[in-house]
Amino acid sequence: MTIELDFCFDFASPNAYFSYKVAPKVEAAIDTQFNYIPVLLGGIFKACDNQAPMLAFAHIKNKPDYERIEIERFIAKHQLNEFNFNPNFPVNTLQVMRGAIVAKDEGILAAYMEAVFHHMWEAPKKMDDLEVIISALNESGLDGEHIMQRTQEPDIKKLLIDNTNATVERGSFGIPTFFVNNDIYYGKDRLRDVEEAVLALQSSAK
Amino acid sequence: MTIELDFCFDFASPNAYFSYKVAPKVEAAIDTQFNYIPVLLGGIFKACDNQAPMLAFAHIKNKPDYERIEIERFIAKHQLNEFNFNPNFPVNTLQVMRGAIVAKDEGILAAYMEAVFHHMWEAPKKMDDLEVIISALNESGLDGEHIMQRTQEPDIKKLLIDNTNATVERGSFGIPTFFVNNDIYYGKDRLRDVEEAVLALQSSAK
Repeated sequence: MTIELDFCFDFASPNAYFSYKVAPKVEAAIDTQFNYIPVLLGGIFKACDNQAPMLAFAHIKNKPDYERIEIERFIAKHQLNEFNFNPNFPVNTLQVMRGAIVAKDEGILAAYMEAVFHHMWEAPKKMDDLEVIISALNESGLDGEHIMQRTQEPDIKKLLIDNTNATVERGSFGIPTFFVNNDIYYGKDRLRDVEEAVLALQSSAK
Repeated sequence: MTIELDFCFDFASPNAYFSYKVAPKVEAAIDTQFNYIPVLLGGIFKACDNQAPMLAFAHIKNKPDYERIEIERFIAKHQLNEFNFNPNFPVNTLQVMRGAIVAKDEGILAAYMEAVFHHMWEAPKKMDDLEVIISALNESGLDGEHIMQRTQEPDIKKLLIDNTNATVERGSFGIPTFFVNNDIYYGKDRLRDVEEAVLALQSSAK
């Protein structure tokens, strides 16, 4: 039995970074790889009339402090000690997400994600500035000029839009969104449920 | 070592009901009882400029559907088959929460909670109507007239306000909120973390 396991991501979301870092542990536990799907969080928010939780909850007393505590707990639990909140948040990720479509097309998505998550959430940079992006990608051993040039191809632009719309049609309203076949799970704290759901499917298929 | 384990609740919240139903399993796993603290959710929301997630998220495409899916998953996982969403939601719980203060004072909080959660979320009634409340309590073998009469005592009214303010001061912004000593956890999905936190404290004390 093949289980489809999708991980819809945008570099804009710190929770996508956290989930990305923990994903290898989940993959090892369930012997199944995530299929990473680049989508545009801004597009999802627009389609769903949603916004970043950090902004939506900013006015609520105690809630931002609690969210900070939960992030610290997640970091401590998974020892994600390289995390540094990006001082440019929220970063417009249109260019780096188009770049992810290019990287997937060229078979280098894994290296590209590793690089961009690093430059967004470990050694945080202003990753909506084209020169900063190119220089960061080059620093990570990728061809920044080439990738950024290809982001201007109409097919690349269209595929990011199509991915985004398809994810919303499947029920997404934010990032990270996971799909176990067509069952939706939202947020880094659902990775445990994703793992349990895959194990249950594997066990019932035996 | 004594671990203080608080469960701040208001009958108004379906997630308080779900957590209440699962609490015995958690208590058995950690060999520790929850200390139930009656608070007024409306007071917390007012103090924090917050509102029920179901209302706050109503306009966001896909999110209400997702929340429904997660509730169904929780119900299925824990076999909470007696749940019936209260058609009068949101119910003003001022009287039944004052009643919980009375019940705690009289040493019958457990029976009172069982009764009111039942009449709110299993055989749902309009539990902000005084006659409905009294009749429901009587039906469950409690003295509805007596309890409701005592809710008018100034000390009872004041204690509910004091509990509510103290919970906000400890960092709460909604219901259910749990405290492991002074570490805060919010929401039914954090019960697993509460359990793990208590086990970790017990293990480190050995």
